Amino acid sequence: MGNGDELGRATLADVAREAEVSVSTVSKVLNGRTDVSAATRGRVERVLRARDYRRAARGGGGEAPLVEIVFHELDSLWAMELLRGVETVATAHGAAVVVTHSGSRRAPGPEWIEAVLRRRPLGVLLALSGLPPGLKRQLRSRSIPFVIIDPAGNPDPDVPSVGSANWSGGLAATRHLIELGHRRIGIVTGPEDTLCALARLDGYRSALAMAGLPVDPDLIAYGDFHAEGGLARATGLLELPDRPTAIFAGSDLQALGVLEAARVHGLRVPEDLSVVGYDDLDIAQWTSPALTTVRQPLREMAEQATRLILALRAGDAPATPSRIELSTTLVVRSSTTAPGLHPATPSKLSAAAPLPR
Amino acid sequence: MGNGDELGRATLADVAREAEVSVSTVSKVLNGRTDVSAATRGRVERVLRARDYRRAARGGGGEAPLVEIVFHELDSLWAMELLRGVETVATAHGAAVVVTHSGSRRAPGPEWIEAVLRRRPLGVLLALSGLPPGLKRQLRSRSIPFVIIDPAGNPDPDVPSVGSANWSGGLAATRHLIELGHRRIGIVTGPEDTLCALARLDGYRSALAMAGLPVDPDLIAYGDFHAEGGLARATGLLELPDRPTAIFAGSDLQALGVLEAARVHGLRVPEDLSVVGYDDLDIAQWTSPALTTVRQPLREMAEQATRLILALRAGDAPATPSRIELSTTLVVRSSTTAPGLHPATPSKLSAAAPLPR
Repeated sequence: MGNGDELGRATLADVAREAEVSVSTVSKVLNGRTDVSAATRGRVERVLRARDYRRAARGGGGEAPLVEIVFHELDSLWAMELLRGVETVATAHGAAVVVTHSGSRRAPGPEWIEAVLRRRPLGVLLALSGLPPGLKRQLRSRSIPFVIIDPAGNPDPDVPSVGSANWSGGLAATRHLIELGHRRIGIVTGPEDTLCALARLDGYRSALAMAGLPVDPDLIAYGDFHAEGGLARATGLLELPDRPTAIFAGSDLQALGVLEAARVHGLRVPEDLSVVGYDDLDIAQWTSPALTTVRQPLREMAEQATRLILALRAGDAPATPSRIELSTTLVVRSSTTAPGLHPATPSKLSAAAPLPR
Repeated sequence: MGNGDELGRATLADVAREAEVSVSTVSKVLNGRTDVSAATRGRVERVLRARDYRRAARGGGGEAPLVEIVFHELDSLWAMELLRGVETVATAHGAAVVVTHSGSRRAPGPEWIEAVLRRRPLGVLLALSGLPPGLKRQLRSRSIPFVIIDPAGNPDPDVPSVGSANWSGGLAATRHLIELGHRRIGIVTGPEDTLCALARLDGYRSALAMAGLPVDPDLIAYGDFHAEGGLARATGLLELPDRPTAIFAGSDLQALGVLEAARVHGLRVPEDLSVVGYDDLDIAQWTSPALTTVRQPLREMAEQATRLILALRAGDAPATPSRIELSTTLVVRSSTTAPGLHPATPSKLSAAAPLPR
C-alpha cells in the first residue's frame, strides 16, 4: 500500500474510471510522480477534489505527525527565529518539524513537492513569496494546508498568510529620525521585488511627506537584506556630496553593513550618523553601538502560522484565506541621536558633509 | 501494521516467545511506548539485538526518508550553521531533515525517543553532549544509527562523533596574542561542564606555558557561550587592578559581549584591548572592528556527521565507533594588535591599566 490513501483500491478505481485513466496513473498523481502529463494530472486532481479526497495524515492515528517549513535561505538569525516559533507550537502539538531550503525566493523544485506528498505532513509553512499554481493544486488535491509567513513578493490572495506591519514599521523608524531633527534621511530597503521592502519604503516616504520633507530619490537604495548589501548601498549614500545624517536600514543585517560603512568613512554612530535597523534580532543589542530598530515579532509570526496550519488541518479555520498581521514596535537603543549635536572629530567625510539643509 | 516492522507477525511471535512476553509487549517496545517495565524492555531489546532486528526505514522503499537533528539550543547562528550542513547532505541523498530542540544540554526527554521510534529516521544527529544509556539502547535495538556533533561534555567512547580541534584552536588563538607581544592575556572560555570549553582552555594554558608565561587563575573565566556571559565575565577581567591587554573569548557570541564590555569601560579595540573569538560565524566579519577568530568548520562538521549516519545506515561504516576531528584555523581580522602600540585616548580605565609587566 505505497499510496497510504484512505480510499483503498476500490475507490482508486472509481477515481480512475471517472478521470478516464488507469489506477496506476491515479496512484502516480497521488504520489507526486512527474511522469504524468499536465493534462492528465489536472483531470485526476479535479476528480480527487470533487470527491473531497483527504489523504491520510502520515501515521493517521497521530503516529508521527510532521509540520514542514520551507525557507528560501537558511543562513540567518531571521530564519532561526522563525524556526524556533514553528518548533515551539509543533512540539506542543506532538508534531516534529521538517526543514527544507528552497534555494530560491520563488519556490521549491519538483523533487520537493514529490517528497512532501510522500511524507504527508499536517501542513506546510512557506517562508517565501508563494507557490506556483501547480504546486498549490497538488497540495490542495491532497488536503495538505499551507500558509505563507511574511510574503516577500506579490501576496497571493487565495493563500492564508502571516506577516507584520511593514508599512507602519517603516513609518515609525523614519518618524523617530525626523523627531530627532534629521532632515537628510537615507534608506536602504530590501530587494525591489519583495513586498515587505516596498511596504517599508512606502512607510518611509509617507513619514517624510507627513513632516513636509521632500523625498530625494538619491537617498533611496535597495539592498539584499544581508550585511553585504547594506555596506555597498550605504557606501553609495555616504559618498553623496550632500550625504544623509541618518540611514534607515531595511533589516538588522543590512544595518551591520551600514555600521561598517560608517566606520570605513570615519563617521561615528550615532554622533555623525544615526542608524535604524529592522527585525530586532538578538544581535541588535550587541552591535556597537546597540541598534535602534523596529521589532518584528518573528517568533510570534511563526507561532501564529503554525497554529493556523493546525487549525486548517483540523477543519477549524475560516473558509476564506486569512491574513494575520502582527504589529511592529520601535526599540530605541544607542545608534540614533539628534544630528550635529556632537561636534564631529576630524574624519574623511564629516567636513564635506554639511548639516541638514 | 502499526509496527511497520520487517519481521511480520510470525517473527514478532518468535521474539515474544524468546523474551517470554506477549506479542503486544514486543510491539509496545518496538513503538517506543513507555508502559513497559525497564526489565521487560531490556529483555525484549536484547532479543531484538541478538536477531539483528532491523526496523524498516520509514517508507522502506526510500519513500520519504528522514534524518533527525537534535539541538540543545535553537537560538544561535551556531545551530543554523550545523543545520545548513545537515540539510545539504540529507537533501543530496533525498532525505528530509527533522529538527528538534531538547531544551537541555544533556538529553531529550522520553516523548522525544517515542516520537523518533515512530518516525523511523535513517539516523539521528545529536548536537548535545550525549544520550542516556536507555535511549542509546532503544535506538540500537531498532538499528537507528546516531552520531554526536561536537560533544560538549564527556565524550562517549562508544558513540561515533564529529568535532573540531578545540585544543589546537585555543593554542592558536593564544599564540597569536603572544606573538603580538601580549603578556596579560585573559580567557573567557565556555561552561565548565563542556569538553570543548575545557579543551580550548587547555590550549590557552599550553600556549602560555610554551612561551614561558605564567598562568594567572585571575585571568581565567567561564562563560555561557552567549554574549551575556561574555559581557559579565569580561567586565570582571577588565575591572582587575592589573587588567589583561587581550582577551580570548571562547566563542564569537561571547566575543560580542567582550566588545561591549570594552566599550562600556571606554577601551578601544584593538588599541586598548585585543579580542579573539571562536567559531567564525558570519557575523564575525561584521562586528566593529571585524573579529579575529578561530574558524571552526561547523557546516563541514555537520556534513561529515550526516555522511557518517548515511554510511552507518547502509552498513558501510567501520564497526568501531569513530571520532572525526576537523581542523581549526586562525582568521586574523581587525580586533587584535600589539599592546600599547597606539597611545590610548583618555578613558576610564586605560590610565589605571599598566602595560604588560
